[in-house]
Amino acid sequence: MSAQCQKILNHVSKHIDLTSEEAEHFSSLLQFKALPRQSVILKSGNSCNTINYVNTGVLRAFYTDDKDKESTIMFAIADWWITDMHSFINQTPATLTIEVIEDCSLAQLSKASLDKLFVDIPKFERLFRIMMQNAYIREQVRVLQNLSQSAEERYENFIRKYPQISNRVTQKQIASYLGITPEFLSALRKNRATKKS
Amino acid sequence: MSAQCQKILNHVSKHIDLTSEEAEHFSSLLQFKALPRQSVILKSGNSCNTINYVNTGVLRAFYTDDKDKESTIMFAIADWWITDMHSFINQTPATLTIEVIEDCSLAQLSKASLDKLFVDIPKFERLFRIMMQNAYIREQVRVLQNLSQSAEERYENFIRKYPQISNRVTQKQIASYLGITPEFLSALRKNRATKKS
Repeated sequence: MSAQCQKILNHVSKHIDLTSEEAEHFSSLLQFKALPRQSVILKSGNSCNTINYVNTGVLRAFYTDDKDKESTIMFAIADWWITDMHSFINQTPATLTIEVIEDCSLAQLSKASLDKLFVDIPKFERLFRIMMQNAYIREQVRVLQNLSQSAEERYENFIRKYPQISNRVTQKQIASYLGITPEFLSALRKNRATKKS
Repeated sequence: MSAQCQKILNHVSKHIDLTSEEAEHFSSLLQFKALPRQSVILKSGNSCNTINYVNTGVLRAFYTDDKDKESTIMFAIADWWITDMHSFINQTPATLTIEVIEDCSLAQLSKASLDKLFVDIPKFERLFRIMMQNAYIREQVRVLQNLSQSAEERYENFIRKYPQISNRVTQKQIASYLGITPEFLSALRKNRATKKS
């Protein structure tokens, strides 16, 4: 079994126990892909065919409005999953674009493979129930922070909660995740440095 | 079987098929409760013991900051579920308060009952996977709207998407869901009325 395959199986085994036959069946449904920095794995408007487990690398999902302003919905690093969930589940054109920020290797599941997996090995419903639950909680906390916290507090939370992300993406990308301009983030950071010195 | 019980079973049967024994076992784990307007079913700081299916009525989950400013996280009407998911799943003190806006009747599941349900009837993992997936998508869309849309656009979306809610809650509550002041919402509504006339 490849190291890539072992990694996603370790991830799965945190939540469900698979027999060796089940592990093999699951592995046979995966597509492994290595992609360099700046690749685009999903373009808004296209169909979103895969849900992607990140073995290594960094990716970003973002929305671009009609004035070309980008809003970052999420980053993903090793051991995370990323897709345009609405588009993937409903098989509608994607709203989001997903780009590779750092060279990455992915394990991909198509919608058909995932649906097959739920039928063939129903305990995967449990894994995805837990994943979706955690994703829901994460987004709900983010909505709450957007409603109740200042940009400065949200920036502090972001770098405290995701140190492995904040060091690997640009300030412009972080600003677009927080919903502020890069200039405003720069001012926040200067203010913060002054306070600390 | 009570009408209340039949309602939640109809809801469940949209996603999974239960045998009559399974339906009976599921029903035996539910607690039914009727509560008048202004009741508080969860107070922030307390433990969040139940996930609540709404048979009838309207509820609201909100966060209160240290300056007593309220941020509405969600409303729930008939056929929705509501809880403080983070607190319920992790059994930590609640961040949110949940209040009854219109007299309601609920079917409640405790954390222990839900965990038991997943073991006794694993197909409930599927139901909750779909519920969590939909909740995740809904929150992700909301994050995206918060990042990319004006308050006016978000208000328009809200009343278009949730007409059954917007007519039954106060303008102040809608403002706290949109993250704007009641005064600003009032100005938006006036502006909108002028445009339409």
